[in-house]
This record gives sequence, structure tokens and C-alpha cells, in this order.
Amino acid sequence: MLNKELIQEKVKQAISILQELDIDVWLTFVRETMLTPDPALDLLVGQDMTWQSAFILTRDSRSIAIIGHFDSENIRQLGAYTDVLAYHKGIADPLAETLTRLNPRQIALNYSERDVAADGLSLGMYRLLHHYLEGTGLTERFVSAEEIMRRVRGRKSPSEVALMRQAIATTESLFDAIEQYAKPGMTQRQIAYFVQEQIDAMRLGYAWEKEFNPIVTCGPHSAIGHAAPGDVVLEKGHTLHVDLGIKQNEYCSDLQRMWYVLDDGETQAPPDVQHAFDVVYGAIKAGEALLKPGVLGWQVDEVVRNFITDNGYPEYMHAFGHLLGRAAHDGATVLGPQWERYTGMCDLAVEAGNVFTLEPHVVVPNRGMMSLEEDVLVTANGVEYLSTPQTALRYIR
Amino acid sequence: MLNKELIQEKVKQAISILQELDIDVWLTFVRETMLTPDPALDLLVGQDMTWQSAFILTRDSRSIAIIGHFDSENIRQLGAYTDVLAYHKGIADPLAETLTRLNPRQIALNYSERDVAADGLSLGMYRLLHHYLEGTGLTERFVSAEEIMRRVRGRKSPSEVALMRQAIATTESLFDAIEQYAKPGMTQRQIAYFVQEQIDAMRLGYAWEKEFNPIVTCGPHSAIGHAAPGDVVLEKGHTLHVDLGIKQNEYCSDLQRMWYVLDDGETQAPPDVQHAFDVVYGAIKAGEALLKPGVLGWQVDEVVRNFITDNGYPEYMHAFGHLLGRAAHDGATVLGPQWERYTGMCDLAVEAGNVFTLEPHVVVPNRGMMSLEEDVLVTANGVEYLSTPQTALRYIR
Repeated sequence: MLNKELIQEKVKQAISILQELDIDVWLTFVRETMLTPDPALDLLVGQDMTWQSAFILTRDSRSIAIIGHFDSENIRQLGAYTDVLAYHKGIADPLAETLTRLNPRQIALNYSERDVAADGLSLGMYRLLHHYLEGTGLTERFVSAEEIMRRVRGRKSPSEVALMRQAIATTESLFDAIEQYAKPGMTQRQIAYFVQEQIDAMRLGYAWEKEFNPIVTCGPHSAIGHAAPGDVVLEKGHTLHVDLGIKQNEYCSDLQRMWYVLDDGETQAPPDVQHAFDVVYGAIKAGEALLKPGVLGWQVDEVVRNFITDNGYPEYMHAFGHLLGRAAHDGATVLGPQWERYTGMCDLAVEAGNVFTLEPHVVVPNRGMMSLEEDVLVTANGVEYLSTPQTALRYIR
Repeated sequence: MLNKELIQEKVKQAISILQELDIDVWLTFVRETMLTPDPALDLLVGQDMTWQSAFILTRDSRSIAIIGHFDSENIRQLGAYTDVLAYHKGIADPLAETLTRLNPRQIALNYSERDVAADGLSLGMYRLLHHYLEGTGLTERFVSAEEIMRRVRGRKSPSEVALMRQAIATTESLFDAIEQYAKPGMTQRQIAYFVQEQIDAMRLGYAWEKEFNPIVTCGPHSAIGHAAPGDVVLEKGHTLHVDLGIKQNEYCSDLQRMWYVLDDGETQAPPDVQHAFDVVYGAIKAGEALLKPGVLGWQVDEVVRNFITDNGYPEYMHAFGHLLGRAAHDGATVLGPQWERYTGMCDLAVEAGNVFTLEPHVVVPNRGMMSLEEDVLVTANGVEYLSTPQTALRYIR
């Protein structure tokens, strides 16, 4: 579903961010985006492009699209571009002419070593751009657009937040349906397929690959992580963990919920399970308390990680949280440790308008996974929950 | 749907192509492929990867996956990789160590200026790779994997062809349903939504963006090209054109069919409409006659293009045909003109096992679009139709 107002809103926001950062031109240069999408395109165009296409935003408030003639009608109708130049045979001349005329001090391109959401330019397209601009002197002015992209993608507008609330509410109703459906003796796969049937019937999308969505962990014998749901059976005395993310109107949810399957004669979870829940819940509260504009990602993660280990569990081998939006992993700024694989992403400052997941976990020996995940919006002073947080264990009888 | 046998088959085929081309190592280096997919991954892995991941195929028949520990179980279960190395904190060391030990003469990477299907490596990932391999001497040995990719993707295996036949047959049944449904007075949007309802009810995917799929052109007043279906009404005396591609079990169809809406008192199309059909049908036959292994893309297109202009119509402003497979535009080798936007892609030789669309069009003044599209498999001596070709105009009354 193409949301023209949202695209217009994000293009305007991007131009104001160019002004903030004092960068003259941001160039998004793509082709055949069904095969090789650029994440910037979702925000700036909202549709796939076939031929080589250039979207140029300038500090002085121009938005220029240079595109194949077949696409020109769609882009005109979008209403987000002040200039739509349609070409027939090749983009090289109109692109070089336009950039030469603009004569920018910098041309920001979509490449980033640390932020995948700002890394949509392929090496082949970068080499092409060099050929097209040969002799213009402009190739010396390339800079990374990662800081532009981080702000444009990370700062959710009110209409983006409204769409996310909707996706999250739908996901919560699916968790309620799971609670009605799941019974001891069912397999991971049965539970996962039940959820997928609801999602498909509602014509919704998946925040990540359907094959691994939802992730259903039954007791201690399920593979942990991004595994496809298998044949492990849900047993009494074990935990049931579901990690589910849907995509509704192009925006994602990403939530985890926990149940305990009561054993014969039990009316509540045994102490080891309850303690694990309390620690994971406490870890989320510890992280939440720190989360506000200006704090660095690793600072939040460190407190949560220490809370977990201080309570006698091994540290989780992932980040405490990530940005959420059009994608489940929605760009830079990770609430995670300063490990190599997060290089640079955990040193970034949290901004108002960011939406983060909060997702610590521990494992309960002989019982299974204990993992919660909430979705929160960073406000001027702290956070606002977009999800209704799970504050107590839920039960399956 | 993950098809393990197909992945195993393509990995083996890729290794035999490394031997054919005498290239030591092919490296596919990706991260967060939900946001920035590499088209090579569809064929070599068949699932998305989150952390930085390296898939290394060697001329001496090793297949090595270096991946985040969360993904290791899935990749082991895939059965396509001889070595699965799972890392916890960062890929740099295992990747540099593995490549140093292999000491290849060349490391083929997924970048290409002309072939988007071979251009999955982002500029940011390329820069990271340079950092990771600094001081090893290996960065001097990078070459483009475009010729490997072209062969791996282009040469469809029998099981790939079988899947495509299925997608095409399903699409043809949808065209039959359109014929039953469409009536003068309906809008483009009504017809498009009718088709989408069938596709969604069958839980099928779309070969390209749903917003523009199917493309429905009603008479002379519809926008031509990749436009979303609008409010133009189907009228008597006009043509109805539908361009539809579905995705079933990960393989695509891409077909166009033509109807004429009989006017009051008519029992067949008027001469201008019939002539346009005959020319477009004749253009397909002219192209089909030339299509066999060894012919270059532009050679086929040129004959078809001349056939159209010799018959008094302006040339079409696109290619005569493109490869079809996992994607609607499935990589290099285009049956198109030597225009800048097709640079290098129309000079490539057709190979046995390629599946092409054949799709010339003309416009009939005051009547509308006349465009057919067939899907054909290149065999040792010529072509085999995967679609049932449209040999006569179809009618709507």
C-alpha cells in the first residue's frame, strides 16, 4: 500500500535534515529494486524502480527524480518531487547535467560500513556512477549519507508511530489467540502454522521471513535462535516462548511473549521459572529506566547485561534492543555491546522519535527459554510503551 | 518455502561453473538481507541472514559458510555446505583465516555494472571486506563474479523449469478467469482487484510489486507502462491488455494477454485491431525463430524491432525479452537493443536452459494497447514454450 502523504512527509523531513547537517545533496541511485532494494527507497519513494533511477534531494528544498519514462507517471502522482525528469535510453547525461548544474559541495551516497539501512548502494552502481560523472570533478565530493539516513529513518513521524501501534495491537491479539489454542502435546510447527493461518487470512505481511516467523520455542529441547519451528512437543512443566513480528501497512511489530505450561497439580510456575521471569522482566525495567534522548546504545545494554549476570544467568549473546519501523531491524543505533559485529552502532545516541525493541533473555535449565520483547517509543524524557508490556507469566493448562 | 534439494543442486552447479571458468573462490558476503538482499543468496542459501555472513564456494568442491551462531542450525540443516563455521562476536577473524588458508588466485565478488542479479555486494560491505583482509594480500585478487552468476542463475535445472511451468499454468488459469469476469463498464482497478483476490486466496506471491500487478490497460486512455491500475473504464471497441506475473514456490511467471471488446453489431475485431495483433504475434514468431544457444541478445531484438517498424508501427521503447526465474527480471542476457541502459546485457550469448519472456508491443490509435508476452525455454536447438501461446485475439462481449 503506497502512502503518498507519508512519502511527502519523509522527503520534507530529509530536506530539513540536510539543512541540519549542512549537506548540499543526497543522491539515492538505484535500479531493479525488486532484486536489489535500497532501504532509502522505502522512505523516499515507496515503490520499486526498474531502470536506473536517481532521487536527488537538495539543501535548498528541491527534490529531483531522474527516472525511466515508464515510471514517470507514478512518480509524478506521488507528489513528493519538485522535478521529474523522464529519460528514454540512458540516465548518464541527465544525471551528470543535473548534478553539474547543482554543483554541490557534497554528494551524500547510501553507503555505510556499520548501518545496513544506509548501505543500499551496490558496488556496481557506485562504479557506474564514477563512469557517468567522469571528468566533472564531482566524484571527489562523495560522502556517506549514513548520518542523514539514521535521522530520517530513526525519527518516526506521528503518522509512522500510529501505523506501528496498529501493527503491535494486531500482534497482541494474535498472542491472545495462541493462548486459547496451544495445549500440551502440540508441536512447535502446529503452533506456528496456526499463527500463520491467522496472519494470511488477515492479508498481513511478516516482519521477517515467514519460514522463521513466528519462532516457537517449546521447552529445553528446541533450537534457540532463528530456527524454523520443528517437531518438538510442548510439554507440561516447560515454557512456551513465541517471537512474532507482523507487517501491517508497511510497518512492523516485533514482540516476544512467555507462557508456562502448568504441570499436574500445579497452580503456578515453580520457583526456577518464576525467578527467570522476574529477572527478565526486571532487566527490561532496568533498561527502560535509562532509555532517553542522548544516552548511547551500549550504556543501556551494559546495565541490562549486568543485571542479568548479577542475577546468576549467563549474558545473552545479542543486543538488548534494536530500532523497529519499516523493517524489523530498522537501521543504526543498537542497544547492544561494543562487539565487533556491532561496530559503531552501539556508540550512537538515542533520539526522540526512535522506536526500540527491548528483548533480554535467559534460559531456565530443563524448562526452556525465558525471553520477553517489548516495543517502546523514545519521547523527550523517557519512553512510552507501544506494546502492552507482559508483567506476569501467562499460563497454558 | 525453502527447497533444500534445489539449493544443494545450485551449489553443486556453481562449483562446476567455477571449474569451467577456472576461478578458485566465489565469495558471497552479506548481512541483514531482509533489508539489503543479495540475489545470489536466493540460489545459494534460500533464506535471509541477519549477521554478517560469508558463503565461500571453491573450485575444489568445498562449500564453506561462516555465519552467526544463531543461524548455524538452519545452515547445517540445509545440507549444502561442507563446512559451517559459527561465530559469536565477529566475522573478521574466521573470514580472514579461512581465505588465507585457501590462498585462492582469485576471489570472485558479487559486483557488476551491467547485471543487477550479480550486483548484490554493497559498497559498505566491500569496504568492510577491505578492512577485514588488510595485510593479507588477498584484496588484490578480487574479480567480478558476474559471469559465474550469469551461468548459475541463467541455466535453469529441470526442477527449476518444472516449478516455472506450474507458475505459468496457474497464471493462464487466471487469464481464463479474467475473460469470464471482465465486462464493458468495469474499471482497470476492478479487474486488477479481481485478479488479486484470486492470487491472495490461493496464497500465491507476486512476481513484481502488488501495487502494479496485474497491469491492466483499458483502451487508449490508460497510462502505458508500470502504472497502478486506475479508473479508466473498459469500453466497447477498445482493447483490454493484462500484464500479470505471479510467484509460486519462489518461481515467477510473466505473461501478457490481449482481448478486444466487441462493439455493438461486431462479431470480430475491426481491421486495425486485427492487424496490430497479427504484427505483434508475427514479431514473437520472428524472434522465436532466431532464439537458440549462441545468438546474442541484440541480434534477436533487432529482427523483432525491424519487423515492427517495417509493418508501420513505431519501435517499442524497451527490450523484446528478459530472463525469467526466481525474479521477473532474472539477471543478465537481455534480448534488447544496444542502448546505454542495457549496456553489456544485450551482447551476451543465449544459453541452453535460459528462460526468456518474449514481449513486443504496438499501440492501436483510438483502440489501445496491443501487447503479448510469452515465456519460453531455450533448448539445444531452439525454444520450447512454457506458456500456451496466444495465437488469436480473445474477445469480451
